[in-house]
Formats: sequence, structure tokens, C-alpha cells
Amino acid sequence: MEFSSKLLSQAVEEIAQLPGIGKRTALRLALHLLKQPKNQTLALASALEAFRTEIIFCDQCHNLSDLSTCSICANPHRDNGQLCVVEDIRDVMAIENTGQFLGKYHVLNGIISPIDGIGPQDLTIDSLVKKVQSGNIREVIFALSATMEADTTLFYINKQLSACAVKISTIARGVPVGDELEYTDEVTLGRSILKRIPYEDSLSQ
Amino acid sequence: MEFSSKLLSQAVEEIAQLPGIGKRTALRLALHLLKQPKNQTLALASALEAFRTEIIFCDQCHNLSDLSTCSICANPHRDNGQLCVVEDIRDVMAIENTGQFLGKYHVLNGIISPIDGIGPQDLTIDSLVKKVQSGNIREVIFALSATMEADTTLFYINKQLSACAVKISTIARGVPVGDELEYTDEVTLGRSILKRIPYEDSLSQ
Repeated sequence: MEFSSKLLSQAVEEIAQLPGIGKRTALRLALHLLKQPKNQTLALASALEAFRTEIIFCDQCHNLSDLSTCSICANPHRDNGQLCVVEDIRDVMAIENTGQFLGKYHVLNGIISPIDGIGPQDLTIDSLVKKVQSGNIREVIFALSATMEADTTLFYINKQLSACAVKISTIARGVPVGDELEYTDEVTLGRSILKRIPYEDSLSQ
Repeated sequence: MEFSSKLLSQAVEEIAQLPGIGKRTALRLALHLLKQPKNQTLALASALEAFRTEIIFCDQCHNLSDLSTCSICANPHRDNGQLCVVEDIRDVMAIENTGQFLGKYHVLNGIISPIDGIGPQDLTIDSLVKKVQSGNIREVIFALSATMEADTTLFYINKQLSACAVKISTIARGVPVGDELEYTDEVTLGRSILKRIPYEDSLSQ
């Protein structure tokens, strides 16, 4: 696509580098911004710049934070003995929304994925192992997605932690609450039969 | 959605103001930027800022341009007597790609749309009428989309130009080249039968 303006062309090039946004969509977004008040674009530009340059990671759980220790890690009412390992901030938000977990988190900031060039050294695995070795953790709960990359990551970390006397668990897989059996995929349904639980356990929230 | 970081929250808010981008997508985009080199975000922010503050409109055709007269208007080989009226820069680019039009353009920078609060005074209609009244234009060709808003706009401008001795035409509507009849919608097919053209005319490219 050739543009009559270099400024437009540069803006479109940069917007189109975002995932899932092609050049046509980028042009539509740029033309939209042009019709809005100038302030909106300036606010967007400065918010992006401030976010990328000033944001820091919590020095304990590695979650995104404005302070050196995030509000969850700084909360004295949360259980230091339970550590929930997640991929990124979205998973922390999802689990916090359930209100069912009162321990602390450890954010990996990614998942082992050779195809994207992400290896164990790019994640916060060393910090996790050190934390567990320090001896205050009773249980490590893995709350990762059900993908092959997540399984690889879990396998790798589990090996690193094998020398530690810590309970390691993963979140339960099965038929989602409210789903109908006939629409559940075969793998999930098959596993949920193999990994069936006592009726009494299924009653507790 | 509540975030642990105000910087992240602001960035997501601003990104989510773009059309077609919700908060979840905005968060995904922000987290993507965080994994890319810092320079990419800074380049995006500065390209957006420069685009919005420095871009100007060609003083003749009102197309987006870096100079006060765009390259098409400044081209002495193009026919000053033919004026193609379009909605925005995307239509100029689409028509330029066909290589079939050698006149000049007039960009309305929008379309009359009461539902979006856009009236005739928000477009470059006055400038178009003045240009036609100056007397150098032989033909005004409307290349607008086939929507109700575009028809309203065409009707309005046509009325304004009725006092001028100028030929007014619109681009042909009909069955797209390469399309099969059975898949063409009824309105288009019906109109293309009513507005049938002599066989000889259909042969010329």
C-alpha cells in the first residue's frame, strides 16, 4: 500500500506491527484517530510510552506493578505457604475474580515455547525455585493453560523442584460447570471419567 | 476489569477507545508490547503523535498530505477538467490502483451521516461548489459507496451544483467483473438489468 503522506505511512506501519492488525485495519484506525479530538491521540501516545518505560515487575511475584512490591504480595492476610504459578497478569486477574484462592502468586511472564524462541531462561523459573528452596512454601499450585507448551513448562519446573519437600498440584481438568455432556470434547470427557472424584468431594464449592 | 497497575490500566483504557478493540484485546496488545523491545512502543507512540499533530490536508483536493499541495494535484499531466469526488484517502488509493482515472480528486473527508452527527458543514462541500463555480471543471464524477448516507450526500451536493453548467456522473453499479449471476444480490442484479448497456459499450475496458 502506498500513501500520499509519509506521516500516515509511518503511523500505519507502526500500528500494523501489533498482533492481529493488518495494514487495512491500521489505516482505518489512523483515519479514525484523525476524526477524533487531537487530545485522544496524544493521550494514547503518552499512555503507551509511560506504560512501556515506567512499568515495573513486583520483586516477589513478578507481576506487573507500579510499586516494587505489588498489593497482593504486600497483603499480610494472604497465605505465604501456598504459591500459585501462572503465565501472566491475565491469569492472576482471572483467579482473583473467583475469590477462591487466598495464597500468593508467582508469575512466569510467559511459557516455554521453542517455536517463539522462549526458553526457560526467559521466564522467572530460577526465582521460583529459589523461593521454594527457601522452605516457607507448603504447596505449589500450577494454574497453567491446557496446552502442550504449558505441559512442557510444568514438566520442566516440576523436575527443578523435585529435590524440594513441597506438595505440587495442578488445577483440576474436567467438564466445565454448567456445560452439557454431549457438547464436551472427547479428550476432556475421557479424562474426567478416568480422574473421577468421590461424590462427597464434588459437593464442596 | 481491575488492574494491579495504573500505568497498565491507563494504556488499556486508551487502546480500548479505538474502534473494534475491546478491553480484553487492548490488554493483549499491551502485554504484547511489553514483550517486544522498548523501541517498538516508543516508535509507535511518536509515529501516532507526529501523524496527528503534523499531518495537513492538501489545499486543493483536501486529501491527507505532507505538503500543502499533494502529489496528484501538483502533477501537470493530470486533467484539471475532470473531478472525482470521494469519501476519503482510501477511495483515492483504490481508484489510483485501477490506473483508469487521469483527472483530479476532491476528498470530502467523510459522508453526511446524521446518526454520527456529521452534517454538510463538516465536509469539504463548500470548497467543491466553489471549485466547480470557478468554471474550469467539465465533469464531476461521484465515486461514493452504495450506502444510504452516500446517496444522501450525493443528493445534497447535486442540488448545490444544479446551477452550474457541469456534467455530473456517478460510477457504474452492476454485477462485479468475474462474479457469477446466481450469487449476485437481487437489488444489484435487478438494477443491472434495468440499466443495461449496449453490447459494444461493454467491450471497451
